[in-house]
Amino acid sequence: MDEFMALAIGEAREGLAAGGIPIGSVLVIDGEVVGRGHNQRVQKGSVVLHAEMDCLENAGRLGAADYKRSVLYSTLSPCDMCSGAVLLYKIPRVVVGENSTFRGPERWLRDRGVEVDVIDSPECADLMTAFIRDHPRLWNEDIGE
Amino acid sequence: MDEFMALAIGEAREGLAAGGIPIGSVLVIDGEVVGRGHNQRVQKGSVVLHAEMDCLENAGRLGAADYKRSVLYSTLSPCDMCSGAVLLYKIPRVVVGENSTFRGPERWLRDRGVEVDVIDSPECADLMTAFIRDHPRLWNEDIGE
Repeated sequence: MDEFMALAIGEAREGLAAGGIPIGSVLVIDGEVVGRGHNQRVQKGSVVLHAEMDCLENAGRLGAADYKRSVLYSTLSPCDMCSGAVLLYKIPRVVVGENSTFRGPERWLRDRGVEVDVIDSPECADLMTAFIRDHPRLWNEDIGE
Repeated sequence: MDEFMALAIGEAREGLAAGGIPIGSVLVIDGEVVGRGHNQRVQKGSVVLHAEMDCLENAGRLGAADYKRSVLYSTLSPCDMCSGAVLLYKIPRVVVGENSTFRGPERWLRDRGVEVDVIDSPECADLMTAFIRDHPRLWNEDIGE
């Protein structure tokens, strides 16, 4: 397991322990973690702080030159909103834990020049599978269904 | 001028008066304003709270049935991130003040079934033209350039 994905999974588990949706994210520049976060729908009543957005927000205001060297890790395939944030900031690479329980617009990201690597982590998939089974309404709310 | 776009412009001006980037947004459901907001990059040091995102966040946690009846007003053409949020929540219509100073992925929105109406408001364009002239670095940061 990539050390950064392991940190993202740790974020997801932290969110789960707090009663939240177990999705975590880490932003890495030049091999250093500059931001981390997890879904805050339950904890902060937020409709915009998906894990990737919480991570970017926690990384703070960065310049274009920083984002252009960054890699965004997420335990789950980024949704339309989070994929859009990747495009806005021209983050060149996204590493995805799994896309079997939910799949965002990965093709759109690739068409726009983003490298999307899906590592098919059973640990990430198990987290989401159990959560969706136990909290289907909350999960649907999070993805606009 | 549409009353809701007038409110969005009011949000933009409020942001400008606070030293921020003058972009405002309003979310309307069944003819009622359910959320409003403006760009918070300067005021909150936020990289995710573009006007549209701030508006959605202020509207709070809504169900899919609510978003599906909503209209999002923005003084400026929504960027990749904000367009992604529109797609995530399946907001069917976006009314845009202007897209001459910046144009987001309007075609992508339309291809995904969103109605995008650009009203070409000189007031919206003047706000952004002056701001970009006076604060080019801040503006570039906001759009990842």
